[in-house]
Amino acid sequence: MGEDIRAVAAAARDASRLLAAEPTTRKNAALEAVAASLEAEKKQILAANRHDIAAAETAGLAEPLLKRLRFDEAKLAEAVRGIHSVVSLPDPVGRVQELRELDEGLLLKKVGCPIGVIGMIFESRPDALVQIASLCLKSGNGVLLKGGSEARETNKALAAAIARGAEAAGMPSGWIGLLQTREDVGAMLALDDDIDLIIPRGSNEFVKHIMDNTRIPVLGHADGICHVFVDAAADIDMALRVVSDSKTQYVAVCNAAETLLVHRDIADRFLPELAVTLSEQGVRLRGCKVTQKYLPDIEHATELDWETEYLDYILAVRVVDDLDAAVSHINQYGSGHTDAIVTTHAETAELFMDLVDSASVMWNCSTRFADGFRYGLGAEVGISTVKVHARGPVGLEGLCTYKWRVRGAGHVVAEYSGPNARSFTHRTLALPEADST
Amino acid sequence: MGEDIRAVAAAARDASRLLAAEPTTRKNAALEAVAASLEAEKKQILAANRHDIAAAETAGLAEPLLKRLRFDEAKLAEAVRGIHSVVSLPDPVGRVQELRELDEGLLLKKVGCPIGVIGMIFESRPDALVQIASLCLKSGNGVLLKGGSEARETNKALAAAIARGAEAAGMPSGWIGLLQTREDVGAMLALDDDIDLIIPRGSNEFVKHIMDNTRIPVLGHADGICHVFVDAAADIDMALRVVSDSKTQYVAVCNAAETLLVHRDIADRFLPELAVTLSEQGVRLRGCKVTQKYLPDIEHATELDWETEYLDYILAVRVVDDLDAAVSHINQYGSGHTDAIVTTHAETAELFMDLVDSASVMWNCSTRFADGFRYGLGAEVGISTVKVHARGPVGLEGLCTYKWRVRGAGHVVAEYSGPNARSFTHRTLALPEADST
Repeated sequence: MGEDIRAVAAAARDASRLLAAEPTTRKNAALEAVAASLEAEKKQILAANRHDIAAAETAGLAEPLLKRLRFDEAKLAEAVRGIHSVVSLPDPVGRVQELRELDEGLLLKKVGCPIGVIGMIFESRPDALVQIASLCLKSGNGVLLKGGSEARETNKALAAAIARGAEAAGMPSGWIGLLQTREDVGAMLALDDDIDLIIPRGSNEFVKHIMDNTRIPVLGHADGICHVFVDAAADIDMALRVVSDSKTQYVAVCNAAETLLVHRDIADRFLPELAVTLSEQGVRLRGCKVTQKYLPDIEHATELDWETEYLDYILAVRVVDDLDAAVSHINQYGSGHTDAIVTTHAETAELFMDLVDSASVMWNCSTRFADGFRYGLGAEVGISTVKVHARGPVGLEGLCTYKWRVRGAGHVVAEYSGPNARSFTHRTLALPEADST
Repeated sequence: MGEDIRAVAAAARDASRLLAAEPTTRKNAALEAVAASLEAEKKQILAANRHDIAAAETAGLAEPLLKRLRFDEAKLAEAVRGIHSVVSLPDPVGRVQELRELDEGLLLKKVGCPIGVIGMIFESRPDALVQIASLCLKSGNGVLLKGGSEARETNKALAAAIARGAEAAGMPSGWIGLLQTREDVGAMLALDDDIDLIIPRGSNEFVKHIMDNTRIPVLGHADGICHVFVDAAADIDMALRVVSDSKTQYVAVCNAAETLLVHRDIADRFLPELAVTLSEQGVRLRGCKVTQKYLPDIEHATELDWETEYLDYILAVRVVDDLDAAVSHINQYGSGHTDAIVTTHAETAELFMDLVDSASVMWNCSTRFADGFRYGLGAEVGISTVKVHARGPVGLEGLCTYKWRVRGAGHVVAEYSGPNARSFTHRTLALPEADST
């Protein structure tokens, strides 16, 4: 098994080096070919999915999981639409990020390029495979994919159709590889020569397990323990709207709020109104002692509540003395995902956004906006809560790095040292216009 | 010990959160205060260094190491000049990288910010401590430093002077912490809650050891196995200059060339001239069988030579059939550091630079240009051969990440779904002028 994966990874590495030199037009044509291939192989793909569904029903999989697993005609049409939207995204590869004359005739360019080979581990939804593969192809990366084992046949059919489509359009074969087993994942973690970045989607524990077992960089995602802080200078109606949306618009996601912090000077006016609004929406509150003074009927919140990602109609509430106490609470208990302040006071808001050490910081709007689509990134590989490489919602840019390209005319370093040394000019030049496709 | 380091790291974390909100002017004033403090405490610093030197002499340390360890009046003056040059660098913190209207009144900013706390492990030169600490202060990061144990007293005196200077200028205490022992390093690797990035400088083996023993991201540096490829369409005089400079301008550094690849169509004219030029400079050649046809007196190069970073007056030479063979050799045996092509043919050069998967790719100039100062980055934290976060010479930008700041006016996500859903405008706005200080 380990040997198989080694060969799959080596093939992806070889292909990735050719993909890196493919122009945007050819990659876009390949994406169109992939979309056509998925439609042409629809029959096999849907049959494979029926096979997976039948097996999952026999195994007694719960209905929400069955729903995620289902890949029918509508899902396929949606996946194809997704590919067309990836075609329309600007290509970060080849984008000049810095341009500097080092000396006469010696030019430095910092240019976007693919990372190389991405190892992607994702959950049971087969549509994720199509989205990730198209983003990798667009950004010129090879990819090793490991989906949920319940979706095995669907994933095989999808990956095969994608590979055939891309190859028919002249892309190098081997750029996409499918892993089958848990052992394959273990084997992949050891291949630091051929894999440049692992992106695991899954539980906190799973991501930590990956980080502990590889020297390959990991673009990880921790829990989403998101906060809303209602400042003393908040507009109460706005605060009710923002808290309510952050908590209830979709409770089962990482950018939903789990803890509400309320400035003590507004607690007496805000908390009773909040309790009415949220109870109408079926949200149960758990409060600190001060909160319970205003809302004596709610449960007591313990230390454990501050650390919990409920993903449910529950909200922990704490009254705090001031901005500093709110920031300290968030930096201590939060997961660095997304945190919001509601205030009419600009200086307080700016300070909050400076001091809160999270990927997304919000002022007078819902935590639920922290999302690749809403941010206008086009598509999302995932949300990163690590602080290097890519942070928060990660789009196509997160699948890219850069290289330094230097062009000279026989320039040598010896001329820049010694008694008659030349000096560098280090003149920043204007960037060329970005190519929009 | 482990507990001590835990407290030191927690203090750096707390301080880093305050540093993140410090404006550029205050950080620059603090850097000036640090420079003044180093000069004020010169007597103690030089005495501490004499103590380290005496101990090293007693221990029989070799002369080159003693030289690196020496921190005298001239070195201190140089370190102070270095701090002034860090003051003059533009501050990446607060720089708006993207600005987008998501909808009317809903604004997204991607803004540069510090990473948080950096764990830096560096070699014996005490001047490195001053440089790293100033770069961290400028970029608003807390830092834990572990230098060579031979420099222990010097490092203690320097770190104390730096801490006092910064604190006198109003910076939060605890942002700089000094580790003393190898066990401290082990303890640091477990503190993924309080340390965001480890930057180890040292051998390949050491960096791999670090990567294998922490879940904290590592900005690593592998060997520098750099190549020059002399294409069939090379100007022979230029090729001689570039190869000679890449190999001999300073042999003991990672961006010096270790292997020369020569296109077979130019080998008969180029190799004999090369042998004359390099033998005058004391370089010994080791060649493949084809090379030995033209230069029968040189040693034979084995597989091992292609993988070796000589850091010496030795150059491995291989004749290749074409560009593809050169690229394959480089991608197989190289370390992804820096590789150059010499050719008059622009298309060949562009393809080489696309296909070679290295941090720096050079056309008609020496590999020795791959350096933070020569690239105009101002100062260099190190050279990265990993492909995520920062690649190649890493300056101040490599110590920074970004956060997403969203400002609304009570915007909620619920309005963007359902039958009367609002649409996002996703309008890219012009960036504000960069602040030059």
